[in-house]
Amino acid sequence: MDVLLLFFLLALITATTPANPNPNPNQFHLLRMKTSSAGIKVPQMNCLSWRLAVETNNLQNWKLVPMQCENYVGNYMLGKQYRLDCEAVANAAIEYANSLSIPKDGRSIWVFDIDETTLSNLPYYARADVAFGAIPYNEEMFNEWVGEGKAPAIPAMLALYQKLLSLGIKAVFLSGTNDKYTDVRIKNLKEAGYTSWEKLILKGPSDPSSAVLYKGSKRTELVKAGYRIVGNIGDQWSDLIGEDVGDRTFKVPDPMYYIG
Amino acid sequence: MDVLLLFFLLALITATTPANPNPNPNQFHLLRMKTSSAGIKVPQMNCLSWRLAVETNNLQNWKLVPMQCENYVGNYMLGKQYRLDCEAVANAAIEYANSLSIPKDGRSIWVFDIDETTLSNLPYYARADVAFGAIPYNEEMFNEWVGEGKAPAIPAMLALYQKLLSLGIKAVFLSGTNDKYTDVRIKNLKEAGYTSWEKLILKGPSDPSSAVLYKGSKRTELVKAGYRIVGNIGDQWSDLIGEDVGDRTFKVPDPMYYIG
Repeated sequence: MDVLLLFFLLALITATTPANPNPNPNQFHLLRMKTSSAGIKVPQMNCLSWRLAVETNNLQNWKLVPMQCENYVGNYMLGKQYRLDCEAVANAAIEYANSLSIPKDGRSIWVFDIDETTLSNLPYYARADVAFGAIPYNEEMFNEWVGEGKAPAIPAMLALYQKLLSLGIKAVFLSGTNDKYTDVRIKNLKEAGYTSWEKLILKGPSDPSSAVLYKGSKRTELVKAGYRIVGNIGDQWSDLIGEDVGDRTFKVPDPMYYIG
Repeated sequence: MDVLLLFFLLALITATTPANPNPNPNQFHLLRMKTSSAGIKVPQMNCLSWRLAVETNNLQNWKLVPMQCENYVGNYMLGKQYRLDCEAVANAAIEYANSLSIPKDGRSIWVFDIDETTLSNLPYYARADVAFGAIPYNEEMFNEWVGEGKAPAIPAMLALYQKLLSLGIKAVFLSGTNDKYTDVRIKNLKEAGYTSWEKLILKGPSDPSSAVLYKGSKRTELVKAGYRIVGNIGDQWSDLIGEDVGDRTFKVPDPMYYIG
């Protein structure tokens, strides 16, 4: 073989091998088959099964992201797939909302959870001392982050919110956040683009500690007050089960933590 | 650079590039990033988001696998990820079942759906004229396949079934299959390894046509007869919602079809 041809081939191979200078490589790298053609098992792939089991509520009451999936979850959350998954949820919700006939009485509402649904705590969860949920939850540290009021919007959810408002569906934010953070949450929501709502419900000292009971009781109050819950969206199944869940529920991905 | 070194490098590169002689390539190939380092979008990846939206019941009443995801779904179902996902469901169910204290009164039951839960119709769905759900459902053709009674067990579900029996939990098979197939289904279940059950319930001519209502009414009958439904597993959300769903439900993956 000609030496020049060899140089050409090597140059071609080098040119088509990405150098990957990205300090936050996305999850597709991890999803690549890490085997020889003999088909040695890819342990990393079990994390996709784990994530599916979490998202379908097959796994409940889990305390921590499995250590072997820490990198997988981090790469997923920082990468393109999480964003595509959020967009798929928003698109399904918009398609449903578009199919509704909304009366003009202003009583149609959509219940939004806040954390990991309307606002993202990813800047917090990406910290080395949080490790995307692979390190035990530290309430004091998390509340400090909430107190900063700097959580960005999840873009697909902001688009859903805007679409719903344009259809005459009002937003109700229902969150397990302690109501002592009411002022900072209002400021945070507005700065992130959620500029108006029918109600913002945060958790008071006399509310049930169980998320399912707390959120269910608040939704029942809304129904009793004459509202129609046409949709309900959250990152936890505890947002979407229990009393008066609404006409349709939508599960936003969240493989970082579980709230029962 | 030395010519021998170049030959060595080329040989090394060739040796680490799998030739992929597999006529049924698994899904990981499709999941590989099909971009330059400039990050041009990967349309194929939306199929993973679509699958997640299906599995979380965010997408409802869909009629067909989207055409662009036909290959993705086929590769998923034939590949390793579907098997890993089924194992993750079974493992979650076994972990839950192990945590129970089962009274020795023989009244604890586990409700199993049949198609795509205990038995797999993949030999049918993989046919070119079915295309993993990308071609409209043909009842006559599907019933012909059911009539052959050759559906294999889903291995992870057979393992779950055996584990539950060993724990003193009895199996109830509850399926929307027409009860004129009772004999062939019994033969099929037994040959696939499901050798005993408390009840096998197939759909009679006077049963409700809605899967949610039909299955709910049959589960209510079981509860009224004194059974405790400790678990309930199915590939459709219509198996897992409605009346008397049981103490825990488990969703088996199925991106091929939707039953409302």
